[in-house]
Amino acid sequence: MEREGSTPRAEGLTRRALLAGIGAAGGAGAMYAAMGVLGLAPTEGTAAVGATGGTRAPAPYVPPQPSDFSLRGGRAATVLVLGAGVAGLASAYELGKAGYHCTVIEARDRVGGRSMTLRGGDSVTELPARAGAGEPGPAAAGAVQRVTFGDGTYFNSGPARIAQWMVTLDYCRELGVPLEVFVNNNASAYVFTAGMKAPVRARTARADAYGYISELLAKATDEGALDARLDDGDRERLLDFLSSFGEIGASYEYSGGDRRGYRVDPGVGPGTALGPPPALSDVLGEGLGRMLTMDAGYDQAMPMFQPVGGMDSIVRALAREVGAANIRTGTRVTGIMNRPGGVEVSVEGGAPLTADYCVAALPPHLLARIPGNLGAGVQAALGTPVPLSAGKLGLEYGRRWWEIEDRVYGGATETDLDLGHIWYPSYGFHTDRGLIVGYYNTGADAETYAALPHGDRLRRALAQGGMVHGRKYGANLLASASVAWTRQPHIEGAWVRWPSMNGFSLLQRPAGRVYFAGDWLTHLIAWQAGAFESARKVVTELHHRVLKEG
Amino acid sequence: MEREGSTPRAEGLTRRALLAGIGAAGGAGAMYAAMGVLGLAPTEGTAAVGATGGTRAPAPYVPPQPSDFSLRGGRAATVLVLGAGVAGLASAYELGKAGYHCTVIEARDRVGGRSMTLRGGDSVTELPARAGAGEPGPAAAGAVQRVTFGDGTYFNSGPARIAQWMVTLDYCRELGVPLEVFVNNNASAYVFTAGMKAPVRARTARADAYGYISELLAKATDEGALDARLDDGDRERLLDFLSSFGEIGASYEYSGGDRRGYRVDPGVGPGTALGPPPALSDVLGEGLGRMLTMDAGYDQAMPMFQPVGGMDSIVRALAREVGAANIRTGTRVTGIMNRPGGVEVSVEGGAPLTADYCVAALPPHLLARIPGNLGAGVQAALGTPVPLSAGKLGLEYGRRWWEIEDRVYGGATETDLDLGHIWYPSYGFHTDRGLIVGYYNTGADAETYAALPHGDRLRRALAQGGMVHGRKYGANLLASASVAWTRQPHIEGAWVRWPSMNGFSLLQRPAGRVYFAGDWLTHLIAWQAGAFESARKVVTELHHRVLKEG
Repeated sequence: MEREGSTPRAEGLTRRALLAGIGAAGGAGAMYAAMGVLGLAPTEGTAAVGATGGTRAPAPYVPPQPSDFSLRGGRAATVLVLGAGVAGLASAYELGKAGYHCTVIEARDRVGGRSMTLRGGDSVTELPARAGAGEPGPAAAGAVQRVTFGDGTYFNSGPARIAQWMVTLDYCRELGVPLEVFVNNNASAYVFTAGMKAPVRARTARADAYGYISELLAKATDEGALDARLDDGDRERLLDFLSSFGEIGASYEYSGGDRRGYRVDPGVGPGTALGPPPALSDVLGEGLGRMLTMDAGYDQAMPMFQPVGGMDSIVRALAREVGAANIRTGTRVTGIMNRPGGVEVSVEGGAPLTADYCVAALPPHLLARIPGNLGAGVQAALGTPVPLSAGKLGLEYGRRWWEIEDRVYGGATETDLDLGHIWYPSYGFHTDRGLIVGYYNTGADAETYAALPHGDRLRRALAQGGMVHGRKYGANLLASASVAWTRQPHIEGAWVRWPSMNGFSLLQRPAGRVYFAGDWLTHLIAWQAGAFESARKVVTELHHRVLKEG
Repeated sequence: MEREGSTPRAEGLTRRALLAGIGAAGGAGAMYAAMGVLGLAPTEGTAAVGATGGTRAPAPYVPPQPSDFSLRGGRAATVLVLGAGVAGLASAYELGKAGYHCTVIEARDRVGGRSMTLRGGDSVTELPARAGAGEPGPAAAGAVQRVTFGDGTYFNSGPARIAQWMVTLDYCRELGVPLEVFVNNNASAYVFTAGMKAPVRARTARADAYGYISELLAKATDEGALDARLDDGDRERLLDFLSSFGEIGASYEYSGGDRRGYRVDPGVGPGTALGPPPALSDVLGEGLGRMLTMDAGYDQAMPMFQPVGGMDSIVRALAREVGAANIRTGTRVTGIMNRPGGVEVSVEGGAPLTADYCVAALPPHLLARIPGNLGAGVQAALGTPVPLSAGKLGLEYGRRWWEIEDRVYGGATETDLDLGHIWYPSYGFHTDRGLIVGYYNTGADAETYAALPHGDRLRRALAQGGMVHGRKYGANLLASASVAWTRQPHIEGAWVRWPSMNGFSLLQRPAGRVYFAGDWLTHLIAWQAGAFESARKVVTELHHRVLKEG
């Protein structure tokens, strides 16, 4: 994350840079923090400042219930939900609890939106590559990948992990979707930055960094350089802390230790240590601090979780609850109109649909292109967020060499190559096959890959991954599939950034009878949790309106 | 871990303190390191120094095979294996691959030794409490706990986690034992030390510690206090590292950030931060460095693993391969004699057994008590290691409040209370019940609990755990079971320490036709991997001898 953003006077490009390219890829927390500092954080969220100036927790979410009507009169309304992604499905699911009749309209031929888990037999259709991101892409279909993964192999090409605090876990519990740990950080995986001659295990890089900063600080403290800041007790506590934190001796000299790892593991014999650490200059390579604290972020900390069998278990469970009969896939929306007493939604190749209300849960850049009568302000607001690039490549191997040879069970290798991260699978340990995510990248790196046909993406990723894992990275490969989110039809972006927050507040309110929902309307952009939180908010407001207006 | 041990001149008590009380509970790596420093590390292990002075990897393990005999003559011998713990079962399993006829003699009524997974219907019999640890306990049975856990609940009362590099994982693969992640470290779990008014989430403690040490070091660096140690490039790199490592601004002032966590989580709104960090003095509490780097140890780093369904899946699979007919439980060994051309083992209530060879895989303090003709040197060596205390308590709850209310999914709370650690379950997420390890402690803390009857252990642990989790810790409790390893019949210790290394080398060699195996003969004391490595070594040596002697 860029540090410039923490200066309150940051303007223009800096502000945009700040709000761009962060999210699921590297700490959304930095985004909220930055938004707060820049005065961008909206005040109409769920957290409110009480009369005494203290904070109070938001009211817990209460789903709509049929008994609400028997108590207060009125009846469940009809609702057209646009988009069968997480926000749309969750809206229909929650409204359905009180008997609302929802119809979900989805342009794609599958539900789930970006929560797309690929398996053998699936195909991935892409829009043609285009010159600049953010421009409306042609609707014509581009290349098609046929996915040939074996039984039991899946590839979460969109969201892949859930933090403990996120509401997504509550939906897993409610819907009976079983969970397992997603390994987001592995001490045995590698760090590889430009300054390094060869990849280094994360544990080694971490031990050396902790060791040297402890040595430097302990010596400075011991020599009195911090006497103005520390009293005797603090000095004592700090030295005690550094002693174990950095594994430095009583001389405060870092000279390595067992945390670095072993050349020959201990067993009957004591093992052979990796040897003394490299010099400080070689340890503190560019970007190392970010790589070693990746999992310190509030949204990235270990442990994280995934549904057993694929992330789409969640959207499948939602769709099951909503009911197949209430979901129309392959149906593109061509118009959204407020009419007296209701809404009218036009769709391609069919009669217009009408209902009492509409929840528009499409990406904002697609909504902005749909004709309607929502007003110039709303239209401008919808056109404000800019879709961003992210891409992933799934590599199915016939041998789990990363476990057997490298002793890496799950987790990620962090690089400053344009592949970004390499993820090792957190499922199927010790089975015959396994799927590595060969790249997960964002921004310009993702655009580089997005512009290529799949075969070239594969070749580029294998060449780069080979710099970490050597020849075996190209061997035993059975199948592959890649997704460039800007080229996915009816999605056209991984997530969005708000170059300014104009419009964010406006779209929290309905435009007539049309409500807007999605992660893009929250402080959890790029997370399924954002879509769920937004859906809960919209459902609550819509339901209260129906109860009030009868 | 005590730092005194890193001084090469450490003697006597310091040396003993060093080798005691570490192992699975807190970083065996420190032990090997210390042993090396103290000149205690044996040289006859698997790692060897080559002719050029460089290190070379040990030869990979090759299991005995029937074809070895057809190539070199000879025939598979008969072997009496004493003890059906991991070392004994693994020895019989590996020898069995080449057709050796092994009979495993086990005094307990179940296989697995310390790899004991408790479920509903099991019972735990304890020896009476005794005054001093290390003394032979009376053989008479003490109290019995009847375990009433519900279906699906299990309690790994012994080993519970496996590091990625350990050979234990290879046995899981070979035996078809499915694995899942064991959460050894959770940013959302708590740290609670004497200096703290209330428990703090590990993420918060870590963010504050990283923040302050980064602030102090960055300011000292910026002011030139480290100019003698750092050139301009290093200074630049260090400041860049600290900037992201400590989440400090350009002013190098730590003032908290999103890594600390939120009072109200981000959602539609930006969330409410926890607020500014406490003062440095309050952050650097005693022992915090150790707690925050628990998982930096080579044997503790995330991710770790566990067999699905209970740790005893491994010993059950081994026993299955060895064959029930070849395992005699409930049979206590009363004598071990080398005879011309073979061994004779006496057992309680039966005729003496004879075979070509014997693998003695009992704890050394029990072997030391068995009469025989192994020689005074061997007898003294067997009497050298001192059994240590460790204890665990399983608490089965009818509600997974730690997940639902505290948002803690697996991992451990680290305390300096005498309960040591509280572990949250890494299996059964979101199910109706769950099992917390209410204490896992060692040394004097474990002795405190070991001296109590189960009911008093439970009350003490609930009172202490309530200091972390409040009233709910005592509610919804369905069942409990505790194990004090010094009071387990035919085991009488959690693991051992070597007060001096005299005897360690001697027992690596057979006494006549009697071989010794166990974690206590390795540098992986307290880990199942030690037992496996020792078994492989003994099996290899025994097999080579049989091939040579015909």
